[in-house]
Amino acid sequence: MTASSSATRRATILDVARAASVSRQTVSNVVNAPERVAPATLARVQAEIRRLGFRPSRAAQTLKQERAGAWGLELDSSGFGRLGAILDTFLVELTAGASARGSHVVPFTASDPAAPLAAYDRLVASRVVDGFVLTDTRRGDPRPAWLEEHEIPYAAFGRVWDDPSITAWVDVDGAAGVEAAVHHLAAQGYERIGYLGWPEGSPVGDDRRSGWVRATTRLGVHNPHWQATSVQALEQASRAAARLLDDLGRGAALVCASDALALGAWRVLLERGLRPGADVGLVCFDDTDIAQALDLSSLHQPLDRVADRVLHVLGARSASRDPAGGLLLPPELVVRSSSKPAGDRTTPKEK
Amino acid sequence: MTASSSATRRATILDVARAASVSRQTVSNVVNAPERVAPATLARVQAEIRRLGFRPSRAAQTLKQERAGAWGLELDSSGFGRLGAILDTFLVELTAGASARGSHVVPFTASDPAAPLAAYDRLVASRVVDGFVLTDTRRGDPRPAWLEEHEIPYAAFGRVWDDPSITAWVDVDGAAGVEAAVHHLAAQGYERIGYLGWPEGSPVGDDRRSGWVRATTRLGVHNPHWQATSVQALEQASRAAARLLDDLGRGAALVCASDALALGAWRVLLERGLRPGADVGLVCFDDTDIAQALDLSSLHQPLDRVADRVLHVLGARSASRDPAGGLLLPPELVVRSSSKPAGDRTTPKEK
Repeated sequence: MTASSSATRRATILDVARAASVSRQTVSNVVNAPERVAPATLARVQAEIRRLGFRPSRAAQTLKQERAGAWGLELDSSGFGRLGAILDTFLVELTAGASARGSHVVPFTASDPAAPLAAYDRLVASRVVDGFVLTDTRRGDPRPAWLEEHEIPYAAFGRVWDDPSITAWVDVDGAAGVEAAVHHLAAQGYERIGYLGWPEGSPVGDDRRSGWVRATTRLGVHNPHWQATSVQALEQASRAAARLLDDLGRGAALVCASDALALGAWRVLLERGLRPGADVGLVCFDDTDIAQALDLSSLHQPLDRVADRVLHVLGARSASRDPAGGLLLPPELVVRSSSKPAGDRTTPKEK
Repeated sequence: MTASSSATRRATILDVARAASVSRQTVSNVVNAPERVAPATLARVQAEIRRLGFRPSRAAQTLKQERAGAWGLELDSSGFGRLGAILDTFLVELTAGASARGSHVVPFTASDPAAPLAAYDRLVASRVVDGFVLTDTRRGDPRPAWLEEHEIPYAAFGRVWDDPSITAWVDVDGAAGVEAAVHHLAAQGYERIGYLGWPEGSPVGDDRRSGWVRATTRLGVHNPHWQATSVQALEQASRAAARLLDDLGRGAALVCASDALALGAWRVLLERGLRPGADVGLVCFDDTDIAQALDLSSLHQPLDRVADRVLHVLGARSASRDPAGGLLLPPELVVRSSSKPAGDRTTPKEK
C-alpha cells in the first residue's frame, strides 16, 4: 500500500457513490450487507463497482476485523517543533475524549517531507492505529484524497479546502467570530472598526477577514482603507498597527486575526500612552496565553466541542456510516478590559 | 493490580537491592539470569528476597513477554486543559524520538483526581503501554514509588524530589541557567542585577532563584534586596517589576523566572519610555512565544536532549538495566536585543 498519484488512483467508495447517485453508506452496504439494499439500487451500484473497477482495500477489510482502538494524530506538520496554543489544547481535549470512548490517540511525526503519506501508511499497516485525526488542513493537502482512496477512517479539524464533497471535518467559523467581535465593538460605542489581518492567501486568514467585511458592511460602517496586513512578527505587526491606528484615530477599535498581531497593536498603544479599551478597543483571535496575560478580549475556539465532533465523525466513519456533513462551530467571544470602554472615554463623535 | 498505600506496600526490587547492598541490576539478574551472578552475591540476594518476601510483579513479567511498544504520557495533571510551551515542545520531541526507536507515545488524562494512579494501572493492565514518561514531578508525587513497587518501567522529565535514591529522571538545571544569565549580563556591563521570581516553595522556582544568589555572590554584586516575587499574572508581575526597577535604577538588569514575569517587566519599561536592552537588561526563562515575540533574551530548555535521555532511561529500565543516575542538562542562553546594551547606553558607573 503506497501513496498513488491522482493520475493512477484507484476508484474509491466515493467515486462509486457519486456515479450511482447513492450515499457512501449504501455502497458500503452493497459490499458488506447486500441484503439491506433494494434490488434495483443493488444492481445499479454493482454495475458501477464493476465499471469503475472498485475494490474495497485490504487495509480497510483488515481493520474491520482487528481494531487497534487508537487514532493517529500527526504533530508538527508545519515544522515549528511545537503544536502551538490551539493544537496543544485540542490534543488534550482529544485525548480526554478518546479515553472516555475507550480509545487512544497516538501522536506521530511524518519524518520524510518528500513522502508525507508514508508514516500514515506504516501506522495503519502495522495496526498501531485504526485511522487518523487530521489537523493543519490546507489547499493542496494530499491526505484526505489518499485516505478516502484507501478507505481509512479519518476526520479533520479544519475544512477540506480542495473538495467540497468531502464532509469528514469540523472547523471553527472564523468569519462568524470576527462578525461577532465587530458587532460587540459597535455595541460598546466604537464607531470606526478596523481590521489587522494576515496577508491574503491563507484560507483561515481570508475567512476571518471576510467576517469583518460582512459585519461592517451590514452596520453601514465599512471603509476599505481601515484594514492592514502583517505577518506574525512583532516589528511588522507593530508597524502595520501604527499606520492603521493613525488612520482610525482615537476612540476607534481594531479586530486582530491573531494574538501576535494584537500584541503589536497593544505595544503601539502603550508607546503612545493610550489605554487598551478606554482609548482604543482591541479584540483578537484564539484566546492564547498572550491574550490572557494582556487582558485582551478574544475569540475562544470551542476545542472541547471540536474534539468531541471529530471523535463522533471517526466513530461513524469506522462503522462505514456517513456522519452529517462538515460542521462549522462559532467561537465564543471572551470579553476583557481591552473592549470595555471606560466611562471617561472620548466618544468618537467628539473627534 | 491496584495502588497500594505505603503502609501495606510490597517489597520492591529497590528494597532488596538496598538490603543486600547491590544494584537493582544485580537483583534483576538474580531473578532472571542467576548464572551471571557470583555465588556469594547470589546467596546474599536470595536471602534478602526471602526475608523481604519480594516477588517480581505479574505485570512486569507479562510485559517482558508481550510488549506494546508504547509509553504512556499523562497530560494536564495540573488541570489547565493545555500543556503549555515546554510540555508542548517536549511532546513533539518525545514523539519524534520514540518513532525513531520504533515505539510510540500514548498520551492520556487521569480522569479521577481522587485515584491518580488508576489510569496508570489500567493502561498497563490492558497492555496499551509498556511504561510511562512522567512530567510535572512534584514533592509528594505518589507516582515514582508506585511505579517502582509494581516494577513498571518509567522515566521522569523532572527530578524525583522525594527520593534521592531514585535516578530514573532527567531535568533541566535551572540554577545553572540563571547563573549563566547573570554572568552574561555582568559581561555586558550591567552592574546591578536583580531577580524577579515566583513566591518561595516551588522546587523549580527555588532552584532557579538559587542560581541568582550563587552567581551574584561569586561576582561580589549580591544584594538581597534586589529581588522580588510575583505569581504569573501580569498585574502582579508588573507591580513587582516596577518596585524592583525603582530600587535598581537605570542601567540595571533583571533575570526573570519566566516569560510571564518578563512580560510584566517589559510593560513597565515601555510605560516609562525605557528601551529593553539599551536602558534595562532583561533575561527570562523558557524561550516561549512571548520571549520570541518581544525579542527577549531567554534560557532555552534543551528539550530534544531531554526527550532523548528519557527514552534512553526507559529502554534501559525495560531491559532491567539501571541507566546512569539522574541527569541535569544546562539550558542554552539565547541572546536577543533585551540584553545587548546599545552603544549609547548610560553606563552604570555614570549613575
